[in-house]
Amino acid sequence: MIKVGVVGGTGYTGVELLRLLARHPGVQLQAITSRGDAGMAVAEMFPSLRGRVDLRFVTPADAELDRCDVVFFATPNGIAMQQARELVDKGVRVIDLAADFRIRDVAEWQKWYGMTHAAPELVAEAVYGLPERNREQIRSARVLANPGCYPTAVQLGFLPLIEAGVADLSHLVADAKSGVSGAGRKAEVHTLFAESADTFKAYGVPGHRHLPEIRQGLAGMAGKAVGLTFVPHLTPMIRGIHATLYVRLTQDVDVQGLFEARYRGEPFVDVMPAGSHPETRSVRASNMCRIAVHRPQGGDIVVVLSVIDNLVKGAAGQAVQNMNIMFGLNETLGLDIVPVSP
Amino acid sequence: MIKVGVVGGTGYTGVELLRLLARHPGVQLQAITSRGDAGMAVAEMFPSLRGRVDLRFVTPADAELDRCDVVFFATPNGIAMQQARELVDKGVRVIDLAADFRIRDVAEWQKWYGMTHAAPELVAEAVYGLPERNREQIRSARVLANPGCYPTAVQLGFLPLIEAGVADLSHLVADAKSGVSGAGRKAEVHTLFAESADTFKAYGVPGHRHLPEIRQGLAGMAGKAVGLTFVPHLTPMIRGIHATLYVRLTQDVDVQGLFEARYRGEPFVDVMPAGSHPETRSVRASNMCRIAVHRPQGGDIVVVLSVIDNLVKGAAGQAVQNMNIMFGLNETLGLDIVPVSP
Amino acid sequence: MIKVGVVGGTGYTGVELLRLLARHPGVQLQAITSRGDAGMAVAEMFPSLRGRVDLRFVTPADAELDRCDVVFFATPNGIAMQQARELVDKGVRVIDLAADFRIRDVAEWQKWYGMTHAAPELVAEAVYGLPERNREQIRSARVLANPGCYPTAVQLGFLPLIEAGVADLSHLVADAKSGVSGAGRKAEVHTLFAESADTFKAYGVPGHRHLPEIRQGLAGMAGKAVGLTFVPHLTPMIRGIHATLYVRLTQDVDVQGLFEARYRGEPFVDVMPAGSHPETRSVRASNMCRIAVHRPQGGDIVVVLSVIDNLVKGAAGQAVQNMNIMFGLNETLGLDIVPVSP
Amino acid sequence: MIKVGVVGGTGYTGVELLRLLARHPGVQLQAITSRGDAGMAVAEMFPSLRGRVDLRFVTPADAELDRCDVVFFATPNGIAMQQARELVDKGVRVIDLAADFRIRDVAEWQKWYGMTHAAPELVAEAVYGLPERNREQIRSARVLANPGCYPTAVQLGFLPLIEAGVADLSHLVADAKSGVSGAGRKAEVHTLFAESADTFKAYGVPGHRHLPEIRQGLAGMAGKAVGLTFVPHLTPMIRGIHATLYVRLTQDVDVQGLFEARYRGEPFVDVMPAGSHPETRSVRASNMCRIAVHRPQGGDIVVVLSVIDNLVKGAAGQAVQNMNIMFGLNETLGLDIVPVSP
Repeated sequence: MIKVGVVGGTGYTGVELLRLLARHPGVQLQAITSRGDAGMAVAEMFPSLRGRVDLRFVTPADAELDRCDVVFFATPNGIAMQQARELVDKGVRVIDLAADFRIRDVAEWQKWYGMTHAAPELVAEAVYGLPERNREQIRSARVLANPGCYPTAVQLGFLPLIEAGVADLSHLVADAKSGVSGAGRKAEVHTLFAESADTFKAYGVPGHRHLPEIRQGLAGMAGKAVGLTFVPHLTPMIRGIHATLYVRLTQDVDVQGLFEARYRGEPFVDVMPAGSHPETRSVRASNMCRIAVHRPQGGDIVVVLSVIDNLVKGAAGQAVQNMNIMFGLNETLGLDIVPVSP
Repeated sequence: MIKVGVVGGTGYTGVELLRLLARHPGVQLQAITSRGDAGMAVAEMFPSLRGRVDLRFVTPADAELDRCDVVFFATPNGIAMQQARELVDKGVRVIDLAADFRIRDVAEWQKWYGMTHAAPELVAEAVYGLPERNREQIRSARVLANPGCYPTAVQLGFLPLIEAGVADLSHLVADAKSGVSGAGRKAEVHTLFAESADTFKAYGVPGHRHLPEIRQGLAGMAGKAVGLTFVPHLTPMIRGIHATLYVRLTQDVDVQGLFEARYRGEPFVDVMPAGSHPETRSVRASNMCRIAVHRPQGGDIVVVLSVIDNLVKGAAGQAVQNMNIMFGLNETLGLDIVPVSP
Repeated sequence: MIKVGVVGGTGYTGVELLRLLARHPGVQLQAITSRGDAGMAVAEMFPSLRGRVDLRFVTPADAELDRCDVVFFATPNGIAMQQARELVDKGVRVIDLAADFRIRDVAEWQKWYGMTHAAPELVAEAVYGLPERNREQIRSARVLANPGCYPTAVQLGFLPLIEAGVADLSHLVADAKSGVSGAGRKAEVHTLFAESADTFKAYGVPGHRHLPEIRQGLAGMAGKAVGLTFVPHLTPMIRGIHATLYVRLTQDVDVQGLFEARYRGEPFVDVMPAGSHPETRSVRASNMCRIAVHRPQGGDIVVVLSVIDNLVKGAAGQAVQNMNIMFGLNETLGLDIVPVSP
Repeated sequence: MIKVGVVGGTGYTGVELLRLLARHPGVQLQAITSRGDAGMAVAEMFPSLRGRVDLRFVTPADAELDRCDVVFFATPNGIAMQQARELVDKGVRVIDLAADFRIRDVAEWQKWYGMTHAAPELVAEAVYGLPERNREQIRSARVLANPGCYPTAVQLGFLPLIEAGVADLSHLVADAKSGVSGAGRKAEVHTLFAESADTFKAYGVPGHRHLPEIRQGLAGMAGKAVGLTFVPHLTPMIRGIHATLYVRLTQDVDVQGLFEARYRGEPFVDVMPAGSHPETRSVRASNMCRIAVHRPQGGDIVVVLSVIDNLVKGAAGQAVQNMNIMFGLNETLGLDIVPVSP
């Protein structure tokens, strides 16, 4: 049994991690930390976990995280980078669900995240945990940077076209829509029900923190920089990301075949039949990414539709998938969840 | 492995049954029937089941249901009563998720359901599948009447008070609120999104079909007729039932202790700590019923709050629970789902 | 033109007041105060008011409220009681949308609201602004206590039965459901979209601040104390309150006729035809209260369904209605809004 | 007073038209037809109109539409084209809210709408009712083609850039999101609440009927054909369209100034300050279109955000605006509605 610690279990990625770990047959949950709520039973804060998680939140000091095999950071940005060094030195592997280790260019990271990075040397060795791109490097990662939610949906949608070299890289468009849980469990006015229900809006058009992460990923696939316009939107639903991608082809190609070939054998990417329109609820509560590819009116513009559950494949589920890979377990262990629909 | 057939797999209770059966380690799904959609892959209609259910809908004639050990009817009212006789005679056990076998008084049933009953003799032998009341009789049932969604939430909430003889039976009030999936997957105007979102209403106040079912159940607990006012409401959420029950006590009693004692050991009833307010999402996608009991200002009125997922404990999940009991399996097999929250 | 000031215009009752006052032909909006947002254009915070309200928020000091004819307090509880004295002494009439002047028993108020009352002598002279009960007193009110949202829906539903003396007053049940805007525009976790969408729950069962207000109102109608159980619930919709009331009749009576007679001529109470089930969206954005009355199965239990928009008839609209009465205007002026449906 | 008839008043555009006309000071509502519901009081079907619309639905034969000054068709596609000729010949002006007269190329129309056009000669004289483009022609129109909902939001967003000749016309992208009321009030499975709540999906990617309408409009602005990719999406909200447009500039230009200049004086187009993100609820229930323009990171890609209420500026409101223009009334008469928010 893998001994697991969770730092920061009171947000949505934290409770989702607990939902998944509570039924994972290969792990033993050792400790869940929360500075603010230490002493409280986890199931008191999250009644959905009554009878499934018997732990109480503990302070980081009481957590004895160095006795774990792996520690998940489900914390705000800037926490993991302060604590990872000590854990790694003691042989504990670290999976960060925040953004601390995602951007290889530390200066770029500091610009977008507005703080000085505390562990640049760990950025250098960290592995970006998109298994469909980096499965081999993930196996031996000591520090794993779990991808952001938008970056997961967007990169998986662009990947086959860019790797195949058939995309006009100068003008990629990613129009992405997220459920409100993506904004986290912080008390803020703009994500109140009465503010975000029955309405729809874009946000962060001048620049969103996931933009450099996506650009880095796409550039890695392309071998050079790409021109990307990324617009995120807030949708009145709880979970789910729907990315609509627009790509001009530079050559004629069987895009359906291209996607099917690239993702054959991937346990968590489902290329749907031609003509499909995946909806977010078809993956709700599961680690699946479903993708459909269109060429409207047979022209040279490809429209890719890519959906994930932002809290699962876009956060906690992908983190567990990465843990499975890192520890040599079956990659789908604990993740065989049938999506909840309706 | 138990060989299972499903008649009528295209509604919400049908697809929910498939979600549960697809990952149940003790069953083998043999056939799913649909007159209208025979030939279509189940996963084409329900993309959430892609990769999990490989069957196609077949006509009843092609289903060879008599080779099953058990057949679930996830059909409209009036279907199971026509087909159950033949199956039972061949040794196939029947679980009806509709209302055909729920009301023991056939004349009463015919009044509320507006049709002539095709198999009154099966009503006589049918077992009402509320395990917390009838576990022993369920074990040997050949025809199982799976309870309605409202009746499950309401009966479990009243049960300890009525069994203990401390309730004023002349004036019980059950104010119940259901998510819209309870209305089924039929194309109707009043359950369109634009009709039922961002609004709230009561319906069926003059009389709802679940009223005689609840009255029968409560009378069974009380040993005599009860005076019940039952008002269902439509709530703009997908899943969930919240029943708020009002009972006048006839004697002073420790109601919290009463409920805890009655449900101790029940795998799917969770009596929450005093002062709790269970919400429907704390059981979403799971087979749990969570209950809290209040005595506002210490008076003689008890308020019971009882929540279930209408498609699971209120339909498909309870049906699987009943199947587990009928076939001597662990009662929780295939039902160990952590509720999905948020 | 009536000169109007608004204290605390940044919450939901505040912006709703602005929506109504912006198009009211008899008023001139003089000043809107906000300590925290002084200097900001109102339409910057509320883009829905762009082109309709050109004012900026000002500090209370800069607002020159004493030059207004009437000042609305759309503030948290405890503010109006500190500022009303000075305004009243200068001849400015005060309409408080919060609870400071609603409860005549100051000790009771202090118990439920947890603070010492700053102006008990104004409580004594304040008029409770439920026009259907107190229209005459409202005309000359200097301090008007605008009723709470639940109390409005619940009192209007019980009123004809209690005034007529046909209700069993020992056991009244009010099961009320509110949209989330009723919780206000404060940043809190439990009213985040991801917390309150697609779920349903009761709250405040041990005791809600609107309970003493309703009890006081019903006792006033009855001429004696009443036994009331009041349970509020949070519903995943933005606006709307649906109160479901349960009353045992003490004598046989034509309840439909009773309600129609009592509310004949009331501009904002609509008694629907027998058998109706009003839904909250049938009054959305309007000042109407729609009521339907049922006697299920012809028994002695009456079920009253009463719906309002919590921000209009339950707050800002009723405040404007009261202002119209206080200043001798047509009671419906500025309130002739057709409900928005769907 | 303008005498008005409405053909087909039972859908969402019909009831919205009634909401607007009921309070329009310049019109007299003469008749509302419905074949299926003739005889029923309008306010019985739509309780929100109780006390505001006293008419009953009548059959077309009983409606005496030829005595009206103008007749609105709020009917499915293919109805107005059969009845308009007779009305026009009698001097009655026709406003069609469906698509019968929107596409000037009759063959193209027939391809997309799958029927033979019954009145091609009326197509030739019909005026496309986008006032911001065609105000002058609208004044004298006998047959007015009211624009589709998506085409309104998309064309108003592209218009300033295309008219100014600064857009790369070879690759325009319109990613549009609609509330579910856009799908109409027909009983269909895919727009049930339990199907379309808490989920998000694209639809019609291979080709949507609004594509040729938008292409025609943009080509009219550009003076030549344009390359447009249009992807509509279904969003779990009742009302609202959000169009996100992506345009490559062919020359450097002050886009904010361009939009402000083009729409100066337009009563129903609001160009928001630079940096804004309009949300659909900022126009809910009103005839406004709000637009914001961005150039992310100062590059050559312009992102335009354009929001409308699909039932008002996208249907009934724009139809009333057109009527006002056609009859020489103040263009905003009856349309001075403050958006409902929250």
